[in-house]
Amino acid sequence: MDIATIIGFIAAVTCLMVGIGANLNSMIDPPSMIIVIGGTIAATLIANPLAEVVNLVGVMKKAILTSVPAHTELIERIVGFAETARREGILALEQAIEDGDDTFLSQGVRLAVDGTEPDLIMDILETELQFIEERHKLGQDIVGNMAGAAPAFGMIGTLIGLVIMLKNMDDPAAIGPGMAIALLTTMYGAILANILFGPIAAKLKVYSGKELLAKRMIIEGIMSIQSGDNPRIVEHKLSVFLSPKVRPSSGEGGDAA
Amino acid sequence: MDIATIIGFIAAVTCLMVGIGANLNSMIDPPSMIIVIGGTIAATLIANPLAEVVNLVGVMKKAILTSVPAHTELIERIVGFAETARREGILALEQAIEDGDDTFLSQGVRLAVDGTEPDLIMDILETELQFIEERHKLGQDIVGNMAGAAPAFGMIGTLIGLVIMLKNMDDPAAIGPGMAIALLTTMYGAILANILFGPIAAKLKVYSGKELLAKRMIIEGIMSIQSGDNPRIVEHKLSVFLSPKVRPSSGEGGDAA
Amino acid sequence: MDIATIIGFIAAVTCLMVGIGANLNSMIDPPSMIIVIGGTIAATLIANPLAEVVNLVGVMKKAILTSVPAHTELIERIVGFAETARREGILALEQAIEDGDDTFLSQGVRLAVDGTEPDLIMDILETELQFIEERHKLGQDIVGNMAGAAPAFGMIGTLIGLVIMLKNMDDPAAIGPGMAIALLTTMYGAILANILFGPIAAKLKVYSGKELLAKRMIIEGIMSIQSGDNPRIVEHKLSVFLSPKVRPSSGEGGDAA
Amino acid sequence: MDIATIIGFIAAVTCLMVGIGANLNSMIDPPSMIIVIGGTIAATLIANPLAEVVNLVGVMKKAILTSVPAHTELIERIVGFAETARREGILALEQAIEDGDDTFLSQGVRLAVDGTEPDLIMDILETELQFIEERHKLGQDIVGNMAGAAPAFGMIGTLIGLVIMLKNMDDPAAIGPGMAIALLTTMYGAILANILFGPIAAKLKVYSGKELLAKRMIIEGIMSIQSGDNPRIVEHKLSVFLSPKVRPSSGEGGDAA
Amino acid sequence: MDIATIIGFIAAVTCLMVGIGANLNSMIDPPSMIIVIGGTIAATLIANPLAEVVNLVGVMKKAILTSVPAHTELIERIVGFAETARREGILALEQAIEDGDDTFLSQGVRLAVDGTEPDLIMDILETELQFIEERHKLGQDIVGNMAGAAPAFGMIGTLIGLVIMLKNMDDPAAIGPGMAIALLTTMYGAILANILFGPIAAKLKVYSGKELLAKRMIIEGIMSIQSGDNPRIVEHKLSVFLSPKVRPSSGEGGDAA
Repeated sequence: MDIATIIGFIAAVTCLMVGIGANLNSMIDPPSMIIVIGGTIAATLIANPLAEVVNLVGVMKKAILTSVPAHTELIERIVGFAETARREGILALEQAIEDGDDTFLSQGVRLAVDGTEPDLIMDILETELQFIEERHKLGQDIVGNMAGAAPAFGMIGTLIGLVIMLKNMDDPAAIGPGMAIALLTTMYGAILANILFGPIAAKLKVYSGKELLAKRMIIEGIMSIQSGDNPRIVEHKLSVFLSPKVRPSSGEGGDAA
Repeated sequence: MDIATIIGFIAAVTCLMVGIGANLNSMIDPPSMIIVIGGTIAATLIANPLAEVVNLVGVMKKAILTSVPAHTELIERIVGFAETARREGILALEQAIEDGDDTFLSQGVRLAVDGTEPDLIMDILETELQFIEERHKLGQDIVGNMAGAAPAFGMIGTLIGLVIMLKNMDDPAAIGPGMAIALLTTMYGAILANILFGPIAAKLKVYSGKELLAKRMIIEGIMSIQSGDNPRIVEHKLSVFLSPKVRPSSGEGGDAA
Repeated sequence: MDIATIIGFIAAVTCLMVGIGANLNSMIDPPSMIIVIGGTIAATLIANPLAEVVNLVGVMKKAILTSVPAHTELIERIVGFAETARREGILALEQAIEDGDDTFLSQGVRLAVDGTEPDLIMDILETELQFIEERHKLGQDIVGNMAGAAPAFGMIGTLIGLVIMLKNMDDPAAIGPGMAIALLTTMYGAILANILFGPIAAKLKVYSGKELLAKRMIIEGIMSIQSGDNPRIVEHKLSVFLSPKVRPSSGEGGDAA
Repeated sequence: MDIATIIGFIAAVTCLMVGIGANLNSMIDPPSMIIVIGGTIAATLIANPLAEVVNLVGVMKKAILTSVPAHTELIERIVGFAETARREGILALEQAIEDGDDTFLSQGVRLAVDGTEPDLIMDILETELQFIEERHKLGQDIVGNMAGAAPAFGMIGTLIGLVIMLKNMDDPAAIGPGMAIALLTTMYGAILANILFGPIAAKLKVYSGKELLAKRMIIEGIMSIQSGDNPRIVEHKLSVFLSPKVRPSSGEGGDAA
Repeated sequence: MDIATIIGFIAAVTCLMVGIGANLNSMIDPPSMIIVIGGTIAATLIANPLAEVVNLVGVMKKAILTSVPAHTELIERIVGFAETARREGILALEQAIEDGDDTFLSQGVRLAVDGTEPDLIMDILETELQFIEERHKLGQDIVGNMAGAAPAFGMIGTLIGLVIMLKNMDDPAAIGPGMAIALLTTMYGAILANILFGPIAAKLKVYSGKELLAKRMIIEGIMSIQSGDNPRIVEHKLSVFLSPKVRPSSGEGGDAA
């Protein structure tokens, strides 16, 4: 679970509660919530194929709950594969991947075990990677567009509220509360955009970058293992993908080269 | 018919009705509608050639009603062509395309049947594809610009309404209803932009991407059939265009290669 | 004359009149017009060389009045040149261009008639084309910036009006009309931006695209004529520039190749 | 002196005065001016190195006062150099540049007189040109950012004024004038952005384009002179940089080639 | 310490104090500060990995306190290394770098002293440089996003304040002060964005450019020293990175080449 996301949500709600204080009741109006949340989802449905929108819940849950994958652990894993391949032959990797969760990694290893041509492995994995990248991009775009739709529906809701209030302006004492309710949709829209959709779209982008880097390391590692590279060479080739600060054994790798 | 678009429109209208409630009458003002809808169309006419604007109705209807083309069915169709060409010769494709609806596909097959040079087929279809892409882009731009024009005419309408109201401020009791009517154009503009033009422009882009991908698969398939490729090879070449998840027989294709 | 532009302007004014109704008098305030129109022109003068701004009136008149050039007619014209050159020799083109209006076309033909080296003709016409493209781009940018300046000066005018009104708030009855006048500049700015400058900038871009395409067809045609190509080949080479739908004789051209 | 800039400023002030009329006094409030002008300068200091900001006054003065350099005069000058070099030898250029104002031109000529390798002259002048381009870009960016900062500080000033006014709302009669003063900062910000910073940033860009083109012509000219080209050839090579319409002797140059 | 940043902050605060005057008390409201500052930090936490946000304090402190690195001093330093390497051999550089603060420089020198292959040094330092560039870009993006989040939370705070005020509108005399407090969050957001986050993000970009240029000079210098270049040649190669105006001895370097 990503601690920053959780801390951020708690902090954001706490900060808003400081301003709301004892007036929480005044802030809650179910019809206003339906206009903003429902309208945002409706606009997303009109703008995108149904499958992508349904898929979105998983995407957002992932962004909130998944912790950033550790690239150093991935290097250790692949170097372990290289050692197994060297000691027991590349076919022994068949067993190793049984426990592997990442389907991209296990698919790549299986292609190598099957003795597929290196060029074809490269082609298959690169195509797969490109589709993963496009899928990520689509998810970010949809959430980013929701960050734009929420304030728009907030404004539409406020305009509806204002028109109703102004049309029925019999009792001047009702103007204040009427306007308060009209403003609620704008507030909901701003909160959804700036606490939920906007930051989640940004975090999806950060995660996508890290995941794609990991996938590129997997491709490089599998190509290196299949060509029979020494595990030290495999490690060195992969550590180039990382910032020198987080490389597992940067100095040593440099000497070994 | 694309279910997501229909569901989205119904959901959007339902959400707005939750806020409007029994005040639907207050929300309808024909002159305000004329300013926003008419102004948006007028600005579109000034900014674009007449033919493009007339063409737009079809473009938007297509975006709302057409369902996403299934790329896997297209692959099956082209592989079927490849099998026919192998069994009965390429001239037999003449019959096969009689039933084909897509003019791009039938044009390409006819060129291959006529024994046109592969380079020339490529040239003709690529040029055609480029014009289709530009036409799609133009349609998206026009609808996207309408999403910008609608709120602008909404604001112009509100300013006109405010000026009239402020000039004739004899009866304070008339201020409320006057202002309510003035705000209606802003509301119409926001609704048109965020429920109609904005999401439709986004959906046109998604559809365009899928259609252009299908056209690229058709070019690849025809070139492959004309060069006498085995139907399995044709299928493999086309499946590379698809996400591994939706490929008709991904594993098998990989083995066959 | 471009019908869409004329229809658009009439439609836009009609729509606004629906909202204004009998209050046209309230909408007209010469000092407010001077602030918005004058301010927009002044900002354009500060931001651009004098010659470009003076040139702009012609640019905008052209966008409003010129109809879209028909590329198919241009092809017929150039194919006619090719037939003349074939029948009577390239020198006979000297007579043909006397009637030609387009200076780019006549310059190109004259270069070919003079027996200039093909590479040099290409160079001269391409350089000329590049400058035409830059001049078009500059015109679009200036009109586009005016679409941004008009609402800005509208807001400045409204702020001036509000400050004057608020400073002299002796008579509460004067607040309404004072504010009405203050709002007029914002309205003028929005109308100018969304009915005049914005759509004209967009139409200039569409026209520029069509004109540059025509110029590119002229270059291709002249090079083809000078190299002694058969008129059918000239026609085929030019028809590639057009969408298959509007090609003069698409199927025939394809056969001839 | 650039006439358009001067005319533009005078026209802009005149237009605003039409709206202000006899209320000029109400428009002037020194503390409001300090907030907007001072705040804009302060933000520029925080965002940029001190040297760049100090340099900015010269940059803006140049944009307002310098007239557009005439490229045709530059061509005449360089062709004159080419004739001198042909008649009296390249060393004679040493005298010619004494009167030259442009340091880029004199540096280039001196390098040619010194018999520096053509490749090295090219390298030195291209590097210099790149730094001039970056410096221009930086200047435009800073002025462009000021066009964004001015309205922001205008809004901050208005918010400060509104808070003060609302806190001390004892006398209802003071509300009007208090709000008038609060609005002044927004007005100052809008005026600064739309009459000063915005248009000046745009004009800097136009000037930069013209100056860089002139510098590129100087490099081409010096390389041509050093390689011993005929003055006619030098002129032809330089005239290619200009729009055919303003070329000194376009037809003749074309014949000479 | 960068003087411009300090002067800018002091100037900005002074300008605001001119407008605030004796009303400083009215401008301070701790709950409003918590909403804006806390909300901005919370949104940053949701959108970014925890490590990056924690790292940010150092990044901003650096932007405020560090002065621009002098590229001319760096050239002198590297030329000194070249002289030492020439006089005492490249191994003597081991001592020279003991005092060096910049880890990039010392790492590069150590690689050269160790006799690493030039291509590998290049590879290692370029990869490191790329990660530094990405880290800088990420820092600028985060601060830039905070400049967008602060006004958004300012608006959310104002909406909360307005709703509370409008709901409890019993005492008309309380409207003014209530609205004043509601507006404070918008003011805080605008101040944070335009005095702190926006300008700091811009300054980070300027600094990043200068630091990356310095690092590129270090790579060029080390490659030049290792290949045994004459110190004059080293100086000349490095001075090409600088604007001719600030080159240590531009004319002389030109002669030496």
